[in-house]
Amino acid sequence: MESKGFVYSVLVLFFLGFQGCAAGRLLTDPKPDKDAVAAYARWLVSQNSWGVLNTISIELKGSPFGNVVSFSDGVPNKGIGVPYFYLTTLDPTAKNALKDQRSSFTVSEYPLGTCGNADPESPTCAKITLSGKLVQLEANSKEAEFAQTALFTKHPEMKEWPKNHDFPFFKLEIKDIFMINWFGGPKPLTVDQYLKYKTNKSAIVN
Amino acid sequence: MESKGFVYSVLVLFFLGFQGCAAGRLLTDPKPDKDAVAAYARWLVSQNSWGVLNTISIELKGSPFGNVVSFSDGVPNKGIGVPYFYLTTLDPTAKNALKDQRSSFTVSEYPLGTCGNADPESPTCAKITLSGKLVQLEANSKEAEFAQTALFTKHPEMKEWPKNHDFPFFKLEIKDIFMINWFGGPKPLTVDQYLKYKTNKSAIVN
Repeated sequence: MESKGFVYSVLVLFFLGFQGCAAGRLLTDPKPDKDAVAAYARWLVSQNSWGVLNTISIELKGSPFGNVVSFSDGVPNKGIGVPYFYLTTLDPTAKNALKDQRSSFTVSEYPLGTCGNADPESPTCAKITLSGKLVQLEANSKEAEFAQTALFTKHPEMKEWPKNHDFPFFKLEIKDIFMINWFGGPKPLTVDQYLKYKTNKSAIVN
Repeated sequence: MESKGFVYSVLVLFFLGFQGCAAGRLLTDPKPDKDAVAAYARWLVSQNSWGVLNTISIELKGSPFGNVVSFSDGVPNKGIGVPYFYLTTLDPTAKNALKDQRSSFTVSEYPLGTCGNADPESPTCAKITLSGKLVQLEANSKEAEFAQTALFTKHPEMKEWPKNHDFPFFKLEIKDIFMINWFGGPKPLTVDQYLKYKTNKSAIVN
């Protein structure tokens, strides 16, 4: 009967894997080797569901303004590395970007639960900052359609968000990548290496 | 014996509460009512252990640069609302701040695991951005001592970080607060209301 209790506990563990943890989603892909830099960066972006999007504040006269946002780089297991966003223009972030496109998007490995006992600031708990331009997508364009599918698949709640709150789709056009996933400072990684890295099941948007 | 299995499962649940989830720490304080704005903001900051610290990038010619960092606003249950940081000057964030102090610090409720089924971008899953000046503390000052205790208590790994990597203590001098914790846009909250709010067990640093 001891083994019955064990089986029960394993079931609880399994169930918690789906529901109990803060990351809120099931990790489907294993973590790449730390030296496979492009693979690691793409994994970090694809596995995460949210991050902090930074713009230059209009209201605070040029100060850097970070905001918690959800994002998606594609449907699960088919991420393309480019983060897409669904932002209301009632929010300062979208307003700021429409005036000054300079932006960065920061994501941590910590909420994925794969950092073991490492501190969130430890270099062994990866972090990535994609810098570039935050660009509004043309309504009803092919890319806006891609963004909608990518976002609504990973964030089903977005389908219900009020249309009268003016939610255009945005993307970050990446110009620079800063990633630390081990000791020794940021890893060398060009935007080209990052974007062209083919995940096993990757898809390219036209 | 069924009840033995149940007890076993509860033990597993209990254990996971400490170890299994991405937030990585035990929540000690209950979540305040959404309309208790200052209490909510102080809770959100005190319960979190990491966030994204934004500065104006030197290297990227004025772009906003977000970076994942650990922080502390005091020892557990004695937070004062001011985020303190332990940042190496080898990292762009500290370098940027030493040239231009304008900064913001963004924290999400999502990794605390208290958002239920809400999406990380949902207004019902709280987010706060503290904007102001990122200031280096004078070495061996009373405030640097407070920062060290606050940080090393919540982030014991920091004690072991290499001293030759030049880790001064910093704090964010808060000038503006942006918090959303429900529908209807950012909550009105002055810096004074935020800083003067007394948590049950709060302590004030001199």
